[in-house]
Amino acid sequence: MKILVTGSTGTLGIPLLQELRKRGHKAFGSDMCHNEDPEYMRCDVREYRQLEELFQKAKPEFVYHLAAEFGRNNGEAYYEQLWTSNQIGTENVIRLCIANKAKLVLAGSSEAYGDSGLPMLEEGVLDDNVHLFHNNYALSKWVQERQVMISAKRKGLNAVILRFFNAYGDGEYYNEYRSVVCLFCYRLMHGLPITVYKDGHREFMYIDDWTRTVANVADKFDKLPRGSNFAGVPVYNIGGDDYRSIEEMAQIVIEEVGKIRPVDKKLITYIASEVGNVPNKRPDLTLTKRDLDHKTLVALPEGIARTVKWMQSVYGEKSNAQKA
Amino acid sequence: MKILVTGSTGTLGIPLLQELRKRGHKAFGSDMCHNEDPEYMRCDVREYRQLEELFQKAKPEFVYHLAAEFGRNNGEAYYEQLWTSNQIGTENVIRLCIANKAKLVLAGSSEAYGDSGLPMLEEGVLDDNVHLFHNNYALSKWVQERQVMISAKRKGLNAVILRFFNAYGDGEYYNEYRSVVCLFCYRLMHGLPITVYKDGHREFMYIDDWTRTVANVADKFDKLPRGSNFAGVPVYNIGGDDYRSIEEMAQIVIEEVGKIRPVDKKLITYIASEVGNVPNKRPDLTLTKRDLDHKTLVALPEGIARTVKWMQSVYGEKSNAQKA
Repeated sequence: MKILVTGSTGTLGIPLLQELRKRGHKAFGSDMCHNEDPEYMRCDVREYRQLEELFQKAKPEFVYHLAAEFGRNNGEAYYEQLWTSNQIGTENVIRLCIANKAKLVLAGSSEAYGDSGLPMLEEGVLDDNVHLFHNNYALSKWVQERQVMISAKRKGLNAVILRFFNAYGDGEYYNEYRSVVCLFCYRLMHGLPITVYKDGHREFMYIDDWTRTVANVADKFDKLPRGSNFAGVPVYNIGGDDYRSIEEMAQIVIEEVGKIRPVDKKLITYIASEVGNVPNKRPDLTLTKRDLDHKTLVALPEGIARTVKWMQSVYGEKSNAQKA
Repeated sequence: MKILVTGSTGTLGIPLLQELRKRGHKAFGSDMCHNEDPEYMRCDVREYRQLEELFQKAKPEFVYHLAAEFGRNNGEAYYEQLWTSNQIGTENVIRLCIANKAKLVLAGSSEAYGDSGLPMLEEGVLDDNVHLFHNNYALSKWVQERQVMISAKRKGLNAVILRFFNAYGDGEYYNEYRSVVCLFCYRLMHGLPITVYKDGHREFMYIDDWTRTVANVADKFDKLPRGSNFAGVPVYNIGGDDYRSIEEMAQIVIEEVGKIRPVDKKLITYIASEVGNVPNKRPDLTLTKRDLDHKTLVALPEGIARTVKWMQSVYGEKSNAQKA
């Protein structure tokens, strides 16, 4: 099948594109920068003209729309990019999918749940009851889903929404807006301080488990049962089974990094809770397992060990030089 | 008081600026185009640099943020401007209000209620329960409110949200995205066809009634009780008492226009209901009357008579020439 992946050079895009090609799909990539891949085109999804050209070139029957601004703090610091990429970009993608009769998979986020209690269940929740939103990013991801559903209901868009929870692992290059696992591993490996919120709980999903399930969507799309929302769009939580406190996760990172270099306990500050964040996030994965053959094969300790090893291979030599 | 009005050359901005000046406020205007008014600066609210300069020039203690893209169909046709003006523009205004300790009045919309039944009551509704949204515009107005509330809760923004229902009257120049009263008056005056949705009901509020109440907010701001939402932001419906079917309103327009020129009944198409619109909208005005001295002084027949007279003065000579 001809598949287009927007955001194909990101942490999630790279392994997804690889996996789709491995399965025999003709997968075309696209992102903000130039790239050596011949099956790739630079395209800013905010620019309709560029996106139109991309669709002409890739002729996709199926689109994974991963290109988006992500992260709570990133969304506050760069709200201009957030609203243009996530809302205008998504609307551009939606309209071109409709015009080209391409099926769409939206990369949604657990943030769309807002602050809504546990477990986070796909069925209905977001339509029946919307809870507190703490930041622009959460709002933006919630809106993306509504854009897709409205277009499915009114304009015949054929779509599936995936809500990604904490994916982590190899290929996630560090910056301050990255996932908490990436932050903890990198910072402790570099002798930098970290903050652990004691009331926080998350599930953790290693990148390989994410990739397999998300690639399954292309293969299973036509057989997925209609969602229970007003537009009938199937919605799936893509998350891990490994639900733990942030503190417990930090402990595993400390042990793993400790095998490489001593971890000074003074680097770790424990704070009761974080303002503007949802303390606990745990997905209900019943539908995802039933329909998408979702499995958690890599548990957190194993995943963190791999992540630290990967980081060492990438950043190893700089480990002691760089202290910000 | 030093007051800044964004969107000051719009249908609502013009009478509001006049009224504020009449009450002795030093009211500064701003909009997308140049203008002869010395107490005015051209500023696109999407551009932070321009807005920063505007705040430096106007030094507002109080901001009416009316600059926004509006209208359901306009929001679908021009979604790029919608998400940039309404989300990035509002975030820019919010941050500059916080930095300059200015109070903010957000021009919200009844669209923020989505499809939520009657009557539309301010208290809690939008936080406890979010209903169907049919279009990008409705989403965008709902998000604007959340942006304000999050900033009030987390960053100390001092704000009031007003949800405007159907305002109509003199000063509303025709285009296809305008209010239903404007559309019906203009089109029948010009021998153009109109469509009446038989299941639709709206309240109607003449511009003078809108202006008085909205100007009252500046004078009463400090005494307004805290809203019942999570951020404590006061929220008021600004709408009329005159709740009628669209069909009844059309009948009044037909009679009024009939005094000027014969109205061919073939111009009017009756359709059962409109896809993608909320059929009935009626605001609960209890809080608005209690706190903002809100009054409906101009009933619909009188308001339509004035509107038609104004349109005749503006478009009179073109009436028969222009048939689109």
